[in-house]
Amino acid sequence: MSGSWIGARLPKPDAPAKVAGREVYGHDLRRPNALEGKILRSPYAHARIVRLDTSAAEAMPGVLAVLTTADLPEAVFGYGKDNRPLKGNKVRRVGDEVAAVAAVDADTALEALEQIRVVYEPLPAVFDPEEALRPDAPLVHEGRETNLFRRQVYRHGDLERGLAEADVVVEDTFELPYVTNAPLEPSFCLAEFEPNGDLVLYSTTQVPFLLQRDLARAIGLPPERVRVVQTAIGGSFGRGLDMYPFEPIAALLARKAGRPVRLAFDRQEEFLSAPMRQPVRAWMRSGAREDGSLVFRQARLTLDVGAYVSWGSVTTLVMAEVIGSLYRVPHVHFEALQVYTNNPVTGAMRGFGNPQATFMVEVQMDRLAEALGMDPLAFRLYNANRPNEITPQGLKITSCGLRECLQAAGRLREGLTARRERGTLRRGVGFASVMNVGGGARIYRSDGCGAIVKVDDFGRVTVVTGSSEIGQGMDAALTQIVAETLGVAPEHVRVVNGDTAIAPWDVGVHASRTTFVAGKAAMLAAQEARRQIIATACELLDVHPDRLEVRDGVVFDRDDPERGLPLDKVVRARHFRPDGRVIMGTGWYDPPNEMVGEDLHGNISAAYSFGAHAAEVEVDLETGRVRVLRVLAAHDVGRAINPMLVEGQVEGGIAMGLGYALSERLQVEQGRPANGSYREYGLPTALDVPKVETVLIETHDPEGPFGAKGVGEMGVPPVAAAVANAIFDAVGVRINRLPITPERIWEALQEKESDGG
Amino acid sequence: MSGSWIGARLPKPDAPAKVAGREVYGHDLRRPNALEGKILRSPYAHARIVRLDTSAAEAMPGVLAVLTTADLPEAVFGYGKDNRPLKGNKVRRVGDEVAAVAAVDADTALEALEQIRVVYEPLPAVFDPEEALRPDAPLVHEGRETNLFRRQVYRHGDLERGLAEADVVVEDTFELPYVTNAPLEPSFCLAEFEPNGDLVLYSTTQVPFLLQRDLARAIGLPPERVRVVQTAIGGSFGRGLDMYPFEPIAALLARKAGRPVRLAFDRQEEFLSAPMRQPVRAWMRSGAREDGSLVFRQARLTLDVGAYVSWGSVTTLVMAEVIGSLYRVPHVHFEALQVYTNNPVTGAMRGFGNPQATFMVEVQMDRLAEALGMDPLAFRLYNANRPNEITPQGLKITSCGLRECLQAAGRLREGLTARRERGTLRRGVGFASVMNVGGGARIYRSDGCGAIVKVDDFGRVTVVTGSSEIGQGMDAALTQIVAETLGVAPEHVRVVNGDTAIAPWDVGVHASRTTFVAGKAAMLAAQEARRQIIATACELLDVHPDRLEVRDGVVFDRDDPERGLPLDKVVRARHFRPDGRVIMGTGWYDPPNEMVGEDLHGNISAAYSFGAHAAEVEVDLETGRVRVLRVLAAHDVGRAINPMLVEGQVEGGIAMGLGYALSERLQVEQGRPANGSYREYGLPTALDVPKVETVLIETHDPEGPFGAKGVGEMGVPPVAAAVANAIFDAVGVRINRLPITPERIWEALQEKESDGG
Repeated sequence: MSGSWIGARLPKPDAPAKVAGREVYGHDLRRPNALEGKILRSPYAHARIVRLDTSAAEAMPGVLAVLTTADLPEAVFGYGKDNRPLKGNKVRRVGDEVAAVAAVDADTALEALEQIRVVYEPLPAVFDPEEALRPDAPLVHEGRETNLFRRQVYRHGDLERGLAEADVVVEDTFELPYVTNAPLEPSFCLAEFEPNGDLVLYSTTQVPFLLQRDLARAIGLPPERVRVVQTAIGGSFGRGLDMYPFEPIAALLARKAGRPVRLAFDRQEEFLSAPMRQPVRAWMRSGAREDGSLVFRQARLTLDVGAYVSWGSVTTLVMAEVIGSLYRVPHVHFEALQVYTNNPVTGAMRGFGNPQATFMVEVQMDRLAEALGMDPLAFRLYNANRPNEITPQGLKITSCGLRECLQAAGRLREGLTARRERGTLRRGVGFASVMNVGGGARIYRSDGCGAIVKVDDFGRVTVVTGSSEIGQGMDAALTQIVAETLGVAPEHVRVVNGDTAIAPWDVGVHASRTTFVAGKAAMLAAQEARRQIIATACELLDVHPDRLEVRDGVVFDRDDPERGLPLDKVVRARHFRPDGRVIMGTGWYDPPNEMVGEDLHGNISAAYSFGAHAAEVEVDLETGRVRVLRVLAAHDVGRAINPMLVEGQVEGGIAMGLGYALSERLQVEQGRPANGSYREYGLPTALDVPKVETVLIETHDPEGPFGAKGVGEMGVPPVAAAVANAIFDAVGVRINRLPITPERIWEALQEKESDGG
Repeated sequence: MSGSWIGARLPKPDAPAKVAGREVYGHDLRRPNALEGKILRSPYAHARIVRLDTSAAEAMPGVLAVLTTADLPEAVFGYGKDNRPLKGNKVRRVGDEVAAVAAVDADTALEALEQIRVVYEPLPAVFDPEEALRPDAPLVHEGRETNLFRRQVYRHGDLERGLAEADVVVEDTFELPYVTNAPLEPSFCLAEFEPNGDLVLYSTTQVPFLLQRDLARAIGLPPERVRVVQTAIGGSFGRGLDMYPFEPIAALLARKAGRPVRLAFDRQEEFLSAPMRQPVRAWMRSGAREDGSLVFRQARLTLDVGAYVSWGSVTTLVMAEVIGSLYRVPHVHFEALQVYTNNPVTGAMRGFGNPQATFMVEVQMDRLAEALGMDPLAFRLYNANRPNEITPQGLKITSCGLRECLQAAGRLREGLTARRERGTLRRGVGFASVMNVGGGARIYRSDGCGAIVKVDDFGRVTVVTGSSEIGQGMDAALTQIVAETLGVAPEHVRVVNGDTAIAPWDVGVHASRTTFVAGKAAMLAAQEARRQIIATACELLDVHPDRLEVRDGVVFDRDDPERGLPLDKVVRARHFRPDGRVIMGTGWYDPPNEMVGEDLHGNISAAYSFGAHAAEVEVDLETGRVRVLRVLAAHDVGRAINPMLVEGQVEGGIAMGLGYALSERLQVEQGRPANGSYREYGLPTALDVPKVETVLIETHDPEGPFGAKGVGEMGVPPVAAAVANAIFDAVGVRINRLPITPERIWEALQEKESDGG
């Protein structure tokens, strides 16, 4: 093969093992003498633990350790420093961890859980964030004065002036549900102490280096004695962004039992105890001038964070960005309340606040266009962000293809009018845009990633990266970037990752940052290796280094391409000589972005990605049933390192967005998930996904590796708004509560009819 | 803990897992769906294969692959390019590989071997190297004109002049037997193809990077598609220095079966098919002047290389060095013949030619002293090598503590005369010296090793090295060298190795090179990491870098030690800031030594290690039984990085040397090992090992890391001669055939008596 590897539609290097069923996922991992760990969980949403008797469980044959709070170090953990691996005095949610058991097999461990006697004294619980804010509400965390975890305010411009200048104003309340990542592989970890007392944790994490630190603190070990090995990941989508109690529990069980402990969630446990996307209740208004220019947005959001706070609570930062900077809007006021309840734990989920905020913004964009009598696409184009502008929020937009994306999305409408109605079926088209961080996101003190590249005597390249493959395509992106940089075939590149003991640091997989940050670090390391190769080749060929090029594994003189040497020969010539050296390069990249301040201003990312979706739907007036017929997704991805994988990310995001729009909702009743199974929860299947056409708008970002920007989360956020706007286009009703079920449409149609009639 | 880690007697970092029984050795390795491979071996030493019928085996349920020469690529392999994984037309030794089977379990595989029908036509075989050199001898390899694999000649000075100048001349013939490494863990490998067609070979090798190349060629894969993972090693001692047929067989079975194949030797197979030390038959004479100065040595050696040649055939190079350069000797003539026979395969074994040559040299040193009427120790001291001299062979001796070693060894004699006789028991003391490569040994185009050092945010240091831990103490040496260089505690250092995909290149474990070469590479990488740390600390502390020191994990101002910062804080300060970086350093070291030419001249090593042993024995005149009472081993090791481990190496070497001296001999009868079991072979047990006093002479080598030189093999070579000389001292007989069994002593005593009578 020849030519450029940037832009090549190559299969993922990790695909063969996965499709052949040969990948060793966490759940497949077996370690000698490993015990099975199981967690005793609270059946109450809020209760005092009056008595805990584990003696019967401890006496059972085959039970090697029973863990209670007596075994815990004092430390608390979590973003809100509000959690402990096991709960001592009271439980705050259904599923809260009360005790744990390690036994020779899972059946024995489960039997032992049944032998543990707990006497609970139920306490009044609170399940509604607004109720939770009342002064007389039961306190979820008694040490705190209120259930308000955090209030955040963002503003720019002058809201009063915006209100005054607006010719039209629209106002809505929105209600967005619990949804959950629901990856095919439930959470997993295996804790094993080495004979020297160091801990190795195998985990489905997506932040090995942060987990190393958090886990160490939670169990009272110095962090340098903890090694985290990320197993192959069967889906994560943000679930693995925090440490959750099961990980320190496994470690503490292993310490107590003196044997490795495996702790693998089943599907029910995953629905009960894996983190979910924050439900949001919001009020919002937007205004525009008659000329079509947006003048203000004001939003007030209440987020239910559940019983404990995670990195997921940083989603408000993304919400403020979308509300503050998606389209040019001079006056913005944003307020978010994050409230503790006795509901399930929330966390990170693909899109990280963006799906919620984009739904609100884009529904109101549509309503403003309607109020102005403007075409919704033209209205969006008029207000679209442009390249090389700094938003009032301080986002430094460099490359920006939003207008091109909108124009591309517009193509979906062409030729549609003819068949808008058929019997009780009505068709419509809706639009929505998306802006997302595309050049990392500094939510931690470092947004960096390290890489090591070595080239062996046969031209095989190894990239050791701090970054993680969680299915998103890290292996593929780094392989192609390094293959291009070194001028070798991708099948000669091997990516090694996932072990904190071996790889250089990385902050983890989040914020669509892998290709941009880890890709750039790998590129820098490969460039160093390339310089070493060129330095030797120019000696061997007696050619100035500037004239040397590497392509298809050959180093040659650009001015005289016949003069060349195979790269592996150059490597060996450098190695096998007096004072020889092997080829090794290191790279480190931390993007030039800023930590956002208390005021939520600041350039959080080194680049921003944009997109616009158009969705065509068909609504049955009689039943309210919606079919999404087509989605056209246009995305500004900088440069697509591998267009096929970008399309895959976009398509996967759209599937996830469609679930959010139409079917997914974890029904939490009295703090308890009522439909926690794949059969009931409403995850879209392959049959629910329409034809998707992905259009890539390549803008060549100046900072990204080979011009690339992040794309991992981009497919999700615009979907719900595009579908909602299309439903309005089809049947004239707006549903501001997700998911947009047939019942809700049917009710709205009935209401509309009775209003009209 | 504080102070210098160089010279500290720390336990091996790999010891806890090993003593706790938690180490995962090759034989412990399990891979999903792995099959068991078994090899059908020839019962004949030399025979034509007339017919091979595998149909019955192939038809057996549970048999997934039967491998014959039809499945092999054309390639030949091995140092002599004389071997193939399976033998097609004829077998050349008992145990030669004829076919192989992969089945669901070992029993099925063994049963399948029984179902393979082979018709052999026995051929005349040759088992004696001298007979093999006769013109009418059967040819082991028919493509060759003769059974002589190689004749090598080394000379310096003028032998005729030496003969003329000598006042005394001694002359001997020597006969040295088959001995074998006999490690606790028999040979093992497991071959697994990844879905992309790359091969991973888990192996008990000690040369992962050379095996990568050799295995690829043997099975017709490009080397970049082969990854070698070295498992934890339960003893090797040189066994793993070459690829042997079982490794390509496992790979080819795995390819044919489409599943991983595990191939583990049992003890019988290990004695039959693992390589052994070359048996030597030699004639040698040495001469000295009346003043005690050595004037010449002349040696003619015949080595039986067996049916196939390995890197073991390079031992002649070491023999030539010992004969040419141990003590100062102006005229030397050396000739070695390496001869094919139908005997077992020979290879590398700790000492690598040195035990054979040192035995011959040191027995004759004793005889010369006797002939001159000189004290054997004084004679040795008079002729000892000295620091900073170049031997006529071209060995550049830098640090050299041979005289000090001899002086220390002399202490064993003190106060001995009083109790030399007791009934039929006679005591005596014997001496022998040793010179060995101590600064690598360039027998391949590169003698280098690479290392990567990273320091994490908590001050934990990871060293990724190309080198291998085979029990010799690599982990410990690198840990202490890096701890010292970086000023951190050794428990904060972790060494990662053994995977060609991750680690930078290394030529492998041989020639006692690990501490010197891999240690220096690790030191260089750590120095680069240290420079990065110092650069940041001098900013933070506002102190000139020259004034900064790191010790006990603290960076401080040497002139004002109160001003300091914990190292992990410095690392984090460098990491968590705009334009931050993590700490990563790379190192590569290839020692300044030379590839030895055809004439066997040249400075093969960057340093030479020396030693002298004194052994006290007690011989029973009635039975010939020998007890070794004490050994005093004085060794010039440059600087001892870890004196406890150096002592361990010396003691282990002495145990191995005692086996060579007194009990070990693989009895090969008609090409077939007759005593191939631990019970019969004669390996010394703990009860056979006398009190050993090790004296370390520290000479601080100018090139070695912290002054260290190699020591791994040094304990073995002088033992047999020291014991033989002690026996002579005790009872007046010299036995030039090893092992010195009671029978041989008794016979010699009888002969001496009848001569005298």
